[in-house]
Amino acid sequence: METWDAIRARRNVRVFAEQPIADADLDRILEAGRRAPSSRNWQPWDFVLVTDREQFPELAKVWRGAAHVAAAAAVIVCLGPVLADDDHRHNWLQYDHGQATMSMALAAADLGIGSSHAAVADQDLARSLLGFPEDRFAVSLLSLGYPADRPLVPLTRPDRRPFDDVVHRGRW
Amino acid sequence: METWDAIRARRNVRVFAEQPIADADLDRILEAGRRAPSSRNWQPWDFVLVTDREQFPELAKVWRGAAHVAAAAAVIVCLGPVLADDDHRHNWLQYDHGQATMSMALAAADLGIGSSHAAVADQDLARSLLGFPEDRFAVSLLSLGYPADRPLVPLTRPDRRPFDDVVHRGRW
Repeated sequence: METWDAIRARRNVRVFAEQPIADADLDRILEAGRRAPSSRNWQPWDFVLVTDREQFPELAKVWRGAAHVAAAAAVIVCLGPVLADDDHRHNWLQYDHGQATMSMALAAADLGIGSSHAAVADQDLARSLLGFPEDRFAVSLLSLGYPADRPLVPLTRPDRRPFDDVVHRGRW
Repeated sequence: METWDAIRARRNVRVFAEQPIADADLDRILEAGRRAPSSRNWQPWDFVLVTDREQFPELAKVWRGAAHVAAAAAVIVCLGPVLADDDHRHNWLQYDHGQATMSMALAAADLGIGSSHAAVADQDLARSLLGFPEDRFAVSLLSLGYPADRPLVPLTRPDRRPFDDVVHRGRW
């Protein structure tokens, strides 16, 4: 798909079809995340790919807004390093994870695959399910699957603030 | 450009050609940011597009790592709402701005336009240059321009950690 079409077709998909995602497509989505830019190229991420659907009902409990996980075809849990309280990089970690997730969401949209990201609140549950070490925490997760409702096509009227409200020219 | 090519061609470009960017292309890049997903669709952003190159030497001083601004063709300064200290959305604001910036960087790459993002440290300077109100702060900025060195083409060996180091299957 053309990039501009993928950018306009990406939307949060929360209800997924039964259809599984091919391994090669999952690897491409993960590769898009791996290639994302980050502050001084520190790449503060590890991606845990979960495709065992039996895990999804439990995984959906890590966040009250993660119900979409339960019916996903695959979930990518994005981990970051636990930083000291006074580390100046807390903001950058979140920012860089946002970049990586967006790159994966667009790579998915390009393949007709929907996605939805969610925060992770229950770190203990996530850690017990996925076995990551104490020096990592789950920053967010990305549910993936083919949309159950309608295919991804460029949206002409996205539910967003008007362009002229968001964009300022020259100065505020 | 195909999405997968744009994802692989995007790289941090810090030295830009003199060539200006067409207004329609800048609007497309901004539109990509406007369409980005955010927590509960709160869209915590305003984008200030600066194309007056006389402003760039001053704008480059908002962050020690923003020297690339000085020779850019355009700069998008991304503003967010100032949140109370105890607001639980500080992380989400950064994460969502990362998503918006990545979307803009990929929309730019699709057009052969390079980009580089930077943090903003000197909020007073940014505010005095751009005139945004006290309830907003500059989260980051994105320099844009055609690369001075070589066109954007898909990178076969990006400077990143190996795939198998970053990706975990099933669990850690």
